[in-house]
Amino acid sequence: MTSFTSSPAATALANLDPGTTGMAYVPPARARALFRKGTVASTAGWSTGFAQANLIAVPSDWAYDVLLFAQRNPRACPVLDVTDAGSPRTELAPGADLRTDLPAYRVWRDGELIDEPTEVRRLWRPDLVAFLIGCSFTFDGALRQVGIPPRHVEEGRNISMYVTNRQCRPAERLKGPLVVTMRPVPSDLVATAVRVTAGMPTLHGAPVHVGDPSGLGIKDLDRPDFGTAVTIRDGEVPVFWACGTTPQAAVMASRPPFALTHAPGHMLVTDVPDAVYRYD
Amino acid sequence: MTSFTSSPAATALANLDPGTTGMAYVPPARARALFRKGTVASTAGWSTGFAQANLIAVPSDWAYDVLLFAQRNPRACPVLDVTDAGSPRTELAPGADLRTDLPAYRVWRDGELIDEPTEVRRLWRPDLVAFLIGCSFTFDGALRQVGIPPRHVEEGRNISMYVTNRQCRPAERLKGPLVVTMRPVPSDLVATAVRVTAGMPTLHGAPVHVGDPSGLGIKDLDRPDFGTAVTIRDGEVPVFWACGTTPQAAVMASRPPFALTHAPGHMLVTDVPDAVYRYD
Repeated sequence: MTSFTSSPAATALANLDPGTTGMAYVPPARARALFRKGTVASTAGWSTGFAQANLIAVPSDWAYDVLLFAQRNPRACPVLDVTDAGSPRTELAPGADLRTDLPAYRVWRDGELIDEPTEVRRLWRPDLVAFLIGCSFTFDGALRQVGIPPRHVEEGRNISMYVTNRQCRPAERLKGPLVVTMRPVPSDLVATAVRVTAGMPTLHGAPVHVGDPSGLGIKDLDRPDFGTAVTIRDGEVPVFWACGTTPQAAVMASRPPFALTHAPGHMLVTDVPDAVYRYD
Repeated sequence: MTSFTSSPAATALANLDPGTTGMAYVPPARARALFRKGTVASTAGWSTGFAQANLIAVPSDWAYDVLLFAQRNPRACPVLDVTDAGSPRTELAPGADLRTDLPAYRVWRDGELIDEPTEVRRLWRPDLVAFLIGCSFTFDGALRQVGIPPRHVEEGRNISMYVTNRQCRPAERLKGPLVVTMRPVPSDLVATAVRVTAGMPTLHGAPVHVGDPSGLGIKDLDRPDFGTAVTIRDGEVPVFWACGTTPQAAVMASRPPFALTHAPGHMLVTDVPDAVYRYD
């Protein structure tokens, strides 16, 4: 991947309605600098117009398992970049340090969550391979533009994420359930939400499920497995998109000896304009 | 991937203009049976409405290199499926045997082409991992529908493929140049060709280059590196798409100890309707 011009993002930003939060206008490099210095926040609503990414880093002898798992489950795990072993650099954000520039991390040993630090410099082993995976926060700006302001951004919360009863297609030693995000959408805008997000297949694309949480095995929308619950208003339908937290569910189910991930909702803010990933 | 209904493909077939060759109406399973019994032919123009795929199989200790190379060069190497080690089965065509059902294969040792057999049963090692990669033959039907009948199909030839002066992004031990296919397109239909193929990003997507072969380091369009030359008429522009033969060029440049591939232009005809891969 070569360098990207910022003009598509600049255009997108110029078209934003004024209801956007202040975080929307923070440039990606500035957002990362804040996180590097210790700011801890969900990146939902930050740096609108730029792609965000999930992180999972594993020892190199597990790298093929993760890459194949992603290839076999592309709705949940659209791979945007893979680092060379040991390198904390990604082409998605050339100035970023993956060890420090996300707001919060999770540390996993044998599938158990053992820590949630704000930087992982000392844990970044020379054999770690990091995968940057597309994030649906990226299309929240596009949804806002078509009249579907994401409720979690409106309410200043992390998004709601749920572990479903759908199993991913396994790959080598990796298996686990599909994780989804949920956004409440007015009934008359569900088709619009489908159309807009279908045009971004490498950012999870169209919803995997619309309405009826029980069809995904979700018992109570008010009790998400990751993130926070949001208000669902009368006339709104819960719409579910595949989520890049799915690899963390696979870590829990498959127990690799070591893994580092972002904390759910606390993403890498990249320098790549989201227009780069649009096919519509 | 689950089973596919054939209705989108059936619709596409019903809409085909009558200029299509007889091969266009051969169902995929019948095409594969013919190839299994010894028919050797370029699959260009065969089984219109169904996706075709490039094949590269390598020992499992090279599988990560290939998968990462594909992830880093998605225009040339859009991965549609990866087999488990030793298995000759793919979800793209549940009844197919990858060892026999392509019209022709290439056998590579240390980066040297040593044979071009019509089946590879005895060469299919227990540690072989096969990658099925999208093929631009798949969108030839869509181009025909918008008034751009592919010249190589009209002339009953294999397509023209060229090794370019553009280097792919390396991955582990794999490196090599981008290979492209070329289709002559009337000047007033170039934009249409771009639009139609851009909607199929996992089948190489939009052209990588339009006109001026020297810009890709191609000295003579009449002397392709793979396949056969086709006629370019007055008022037509050569249009270049990334090609799934690129992994073979990487094999030549990177010299893995062993690899099996399809022979250029002699693809796996899958059971997957091409509509499955359309985003437009």
